[in-house]
Amino acid sequence: MQYKQRHTKTSRDIVTIEDLTNDEIMKIFSLADIFLETMGTGNEGTSRRIRGVTPWAKGFILATLFYEPSTRTRFSFESAMQRLGGSVVTAADPSTTSVTKGETIADTVRVLESYADAIVLRHPFEGAARVAADYTDIPVVNAGDGGHEHPTQTLCDLYTLQKKNKTLAGLNVLLYGDLKNGRTIHSLIYALARFGACIIAVPGTPGLELPTHVHTRLREEYGCDLSTSKNTADLPMKQVDVVYVTPTKPHQLALLDTEELKIEISLPKIDIFYVTRPQRERDHDTAFQNYPSVDRNFLSNNRFRDASVLHPLPRVDELSYEIDEDRRGIYFQQAAYGVPVRMALLAALLHLDEARDFAITKQPEENSERQVYSAEQGLKCDNSRCITHHPNESAYLTPTFTYRTPQSLRCVYCEHELQPAFIGNSTTRKYTSCLSKRIKSKHLVCFSNEQQARDRGFELYKTQRSESEKVLT
Amino acid sequence: MQYKQRHTKTSRDIVTIEDLTNDEIMKIFSLADIFLETMGTGNEGTSRRIRGVTPWAKGFILATLFYEPSTRTRFSFESAMQRLGGSVVTAADPSTTSVTKGETIADTVRVLESYADAIVLRHPFEGAARVAADYTDIPVVNAGDGGHEHPTQTLCDLYTLQKKNKTLAGLNVLLYGDLKNGRTIHSLIYALARFGACIIAVPGTPGLELPTHVHTRLREEYGCDLSTSKNTADLPMKQVDVVYVTPTKPHQLALLDTEELKIEISLPKIDIFYVTRPQRERDHDTAFQNYPSVDRNFLSNNRFRDASVLHPLPRVDELSYEIDEDRRGIYFQQAAYGVPVRMALLAALLHLDEARDFAITKQPEENSERQVYSAEQGLKCDNSRCITHHPNESAYLTPTFTYRTPQSLRCVYCEHELQPAFIGNSTTRKYTSCLSKRIKSKHLVCFSNEQQARDRGFELYKTQRSESEKVLT
Amino acid sequence: MQYKQRHTKTSRDIVTIEDLTNDEIMKIFSLADIFLETMGTGNEGTSRRIRGVTPWAKGFILATLFYEPSTRTRFSFESAMQRLGGSVVTAADPSTTSVTKGETIADTVRVLESYADAIVLRHPFEGAARVAADYTDIPVVNAGDGGHEHPTQTLCDLYTLQKKNKTLAGLNVLLYGDLKNGRTIHSLIYALARFGACIIAVPGTPGLELPTHVHTRLREEYGCDLSTSKNTADLPMKQVDVVYVTPTKPHQLALLDTEELKIEISLPKIDIFYVTRPQRERDHDTAFQNYPSVDRNFLSNNRFRDASVLHPLPRVDELSYEIDEDRRGIYFQQAAYGVPVRMALLAALLHLDEARDFAITKQPEENSERQVYSAEQGLKCDNSRCITHHPNESAYLTPTFTYRTPQSLRCVYCEHELQPAFIGNSTTRKYTSCLSKRIKSKHLVCFSNEQQARDRGFELYKTQRSESEKVLT
Repeated sequence: MQYKQRHTKTSRDIVTIEDLTNDEIMKIFSLADIFLETMGTGNEGTSRRIRGVTPWAKGFILATLFYEPSTRTRFSFESAMQRLGGSVVTAADPSTTSVTKGETIADTVRVLESYADAIVLRHPFEGAARVAADYTDIPVVNAGDGGHEHPTQTLCDLYTLQKKNKTLAGLNVLLYGDLKNGRTIHSLIYALARFGACIIAVPGTPGLELPTHVHTRLREEYGCDLSTSKNTADLPMKQVDVVYVTPTKPHQLALLDTEELKIEISLPKIDIFYVTRPQRERDHDTAFQNYPSVDRNFLSNNRFRDASVLHPLPRVDELSYEIDEDRRGIYFQQAAYGVPVRMALLAALLHLDEARDFAITKQPEENSERQVYSAEQGLKCDNSRCITHHPNESAYLTPTFTYRTPQSLRCVYCEHELQPAFIGNSTTRKYTSCLSKRIKSKHLVCFSNEQQARDRGFELYKTQRSESEKVLT
Repeated sequence: MQYKQRHTKTSRDIVTIEDLTNDEIMKIFSLADIFLETMGTGNEGTSRRIRGVTPWAKGFILATLFYEPSTRTRFSFESAMQRLGGSVVTAADPSTTSVTKGETIADTVRVLESYADAIVLRHPFEGAARVAADYTDIPVVNAGDGGHEHPTQTLCDLYTLQKKNKTLAGLNVLLYGDLKNGRTIHSLIYALARFGACIIAVPGTPGLELPTHVHTRLREEYGCDLSTSKNTADLPMKQVDVVYVTPTKPHQLALLDTEELKIEISLPKIDIFYVTRPQRERDHDTAFQNYPSVDRNFLSNNRFRDASVLHPLPRVDELSYEIDEDRRGIYFQQAAYGVPVRMALLAALLHLDEARDFAITKQPEENSERQVYSAEQGLKCDNSRCITHHPNESAYLTPTFTYRTPQSLRCVYCEHELQPAFIGNSTTRKYTSCLSKRIKSKHLVCFSNEQQARDRGFELYKTQRSESEKVLT
Repeated sequence: MQYKQRHTKTSRDIVTIEDLTNDEIMKIFSLADIFLETMGTGNEGTSRRIRGVTPWAKGFILATLFYEPSTRTRFSFESAMQRLGGSVVTAADPSTTSVTKGETIADTVRVLESYADAIVLRHPFEGAARVAADYTDIPVVNAGDGGHEHPTQTLCDLYTLQKKNKTLAGLNVLLYGDLKNGRTIHSLIYALARFGACIIAVPGTPGLELPTHVHTRLREEYGCDLSTSKNTADLPMKQVDVVYVTPTKPHQLALLDTEELKIEISLPKIDIFYVTRPQRERDHDTAFQNYPSVDRNFLSNNRFRDASVLHPLPRVDELSYEIDEDRRGIYFQQAAYGVPVRMALLAALLHLDEARDFAITKQPEENSERQVYSAEQGLKCDNSRCITHHPNESAYLTPTFTYRTPQSLRCVYCEHELQPAFIGNSTTRKYTSCLSKRIKSKHLVCFSNEQQARDRGFELYKTQRSESEKVLT
């Protein structure tokens, strides 16, 4: 995150999985291992759960603030906090409360920081957790902000993979289902890329492929390559390369035989089969009716013989109850790991004395490649579910973006990509539609349309005629 | 419960009061006594409440999962758990949560078992707690599943009777009000029968009498006799016989003089007067307008001189506020006993070290008289509020019934009685409408109608013509 | 409170700020100071919050019962209870629960007293907390009952003033905004009067002035004087006198220059600038559109140079986010003080051993000047939001009033003032419209109209003709 926070805080927030370095993630996993060893039932290979309590977090209070109800996620955090020895204040559904009086996230969290030692937030708007993190000086953990991020789900997914396979590097991970909607699956993909897993992306139905911006980001920021091989059997399974196969082209669509419900990808074997729910509520454009159910028949291909089946739950009908009894279905264990992982995360964020060696303290080093642009007027994020468009919050939030080139701004809140129509130079008061033009960060001004530029007193660069002039001539 | 659970579990569930033997109930009461003696305020005869906390359940987490809100019941469990030294995660009204994403009880409880050590469940559908108990291996306590059961209410009722009268055997218990709707009153009746109390059932208005199946069950399973005496003065008050007087016949209706609001039942005395709320929300057929209010005048009959007035609360207007100040009204004490009783139950179910001698461990011995029938296709429970009809749950639940004779199946979930129209033999592939025909349990197939039988390839027994043939000839 | 409670209770309730004497308030503040010193972060002058936990309230359970959701208030109580070492059972929004079955507050709290050691109640009806306090023998704290009272908010306000200024006496407190709606601001005014602060009341827009009954009460019960000086510069700033300037007259309206948003009150300086939210939801008569926002420009007058800006939160747009960064804006500190103050109050009410010296035990001495009148029939409180008009509660509550003269009754629940149209003498069975007539308290009967008097068999005093007779002649 290159976006500079509103004020320096000594504590850390987990808004996206990117807020944690690989080392920090491994640190959290080591601490989770300790909790499992000292408080867990069962042994490796059997079902394992945390039981009992430590005195580590005695006197610490966690506030769980759910603007959208989610019993499972809330319980996993509250159970983790109580197993750590702390206590909880909870708002299971504040949508009907002070929000109706117009209260903002910024005010709520600044009050809460006097009542609690950390905040777990779920909110229907994308970027809400970033706002909360910016305005309070206690740790904020994002427990889901609309279709944006759910980083502790990603942590639990990764931890499950690692517990099952001892490593993440080189794992053949098949991601199946709705790869278009929900950034949680995208976060998992980026995280897998960071740890060197091989990614095979298979949409549940045509239309649910990975979006272009994920492809772009995988290539540009994570150095991944898309295999150009027609037959996936020829894929070079190098450890650090990420493979993502999206059957949108005719020869690739053949990979997904929807009649037989078998995936004919010629990889030696699949280690992880990660199934996701069709997010019908977030996507009214796609036809979901042929979304197939993963059942024993689906998994009968020899390639899946030793694949672990994961699912973030809740499921609807994309994953058959048959698999519950199948040794490969480990999604309830995946859910169970939520407790030790969240215990470890909370212990690390709260700097508990007993977890001293695992404390997450300093901000990760900033990646200086991206510039920051604050749009005082005019330009806004074009994602209608972005928190900057929330009626209460828009009053005090300044739309802010990071970029490498002004051709592609990224909202610091919801992380959606945006292309301004025009850019200008605040010193020369000139604007242009040539987005590749180099303008120093401190002088950059972006516009959604030409009128915005003119309204702010900017003139067109001489070398260029305005769009309207072009039309007139 | 003869129905075999989905998987063997080492812990115990309290779905119905039948899940506890008489000995186990007395064990729980002994432990409740200990809590009252060591942590209770007041003395025998005065108002007694639990204060303070034990360290017994330190590190144990109780999940209270209320799909239907009930502040009182939820608070009594949460208070009990906290007084035991444990902690709580709570969902006060999950009706708006993951349920809308289609999540099932089976999935929810299998995730919760990793977060909590026991589950208390309330659900609007009958049989929901049985499903929860089947799918998780931690203890499940039913805190009310629609009109089916509320066993801890029954426990508290029995405990109150025993504290007040030192014994349950031979008590003259008058049950008054809505005896038709709500199995909670039926559970209490069965429990009273088990402990040898004498039951006098008096409906609040005609139409609210005990249903036939309760009469049948009292006679067949609890060995109770209905007094045939016209005048209840002649009733033999033998200790083990249960007397239930239902004024549906003219000479009995005279017993209930609605004008004077006095009940002219010639029993020497009433020990307990148990008043219930008219369950208008569950019964749109009965005229409730004449439902009388129990007040001082109502209780002026000498027979009630030493009767304790109980009520499960909340009341509407069937029990006057006058009685609050009357020494006979002990319903607030009855509510207060909810804490020690639930503390004892939780301590026994969680196998707390300090409650070792009171632990409830082994399943009660199975009553081998009833057979189990699983209806893979066709036959369904005909109770529309049964959990097997819930849109989410029906996808994975197999309608299952127990029976002595196929003439009377009992749903294992909601315990409603059902009579199939036809039965068949899966080996001979023949069916018949003669329900008394003997077919071995493993070959039994039941049908709601003849078409179902034919659709599954069954043929009519030769000795019998089908209903449609009869019509044709 | 002259109204005699339903039954004598040994514990104390905080229904209004009047339930605490000045000494008791100072006792609570001393205990809050101790909490801040031993558990607080920061030093005087910096942001201070409570962290950690005491073992004082171990084994004590607080029930937070919110019939109207308020995350902030609820969290502050729950955090306070947990920091004290106690635990919590919570109903965040019981509006959908047993209330729909018709359960009353009186029944709810009598059950809750067996589950919890104290109750914090919020309810949309005015006087609800008084009912709760009357019917339970554990302490009840009012966390807001409609537009009536919110005494712990007042305590936190006073504590913030005292921490900032070392004293309350002689402070120049400017109360700004909606002074008409919401008794919370009125409570604060009375409390300020009790401690000798000078009050300058400035409505946000015309129409939001202090109501007449507040003026009356300030003069009659608190011995305050309204300055008659035309120019507030001439106001005698005597320490014990309360000054309340309400610019409703032409020359006073000039004080509020809405164009410039500057208040030209010629007081030497303002110590406290207390801003309130326009209560649009309680007032459909007033035009709120010109309600100005307090921002840096507003506060640029030299008079406000050292004024602390307080706000009870949540704010809408009456207080600019600019002030968040201004050293004068201390409303988040004000919110933070909610924890030590509520810890102190709970410790004092629960008679915790370690807070022995601060225990609040005996009822404050009764002010014998007011008489009590219970209206068995006829007369009702004319405040439609009074709890005595709630459909469930009205069945058992007797409208009851206190008075000095029958000309002005005050409802013991919602404290609204009421003037009966006629009064009678229950011995002579005569009635009159002459409200100043002296009738002994035990013989007084009040009527809303003449028909009520006649229906109860009263006759007009001979010296007076009835209203209807007057009309006829």
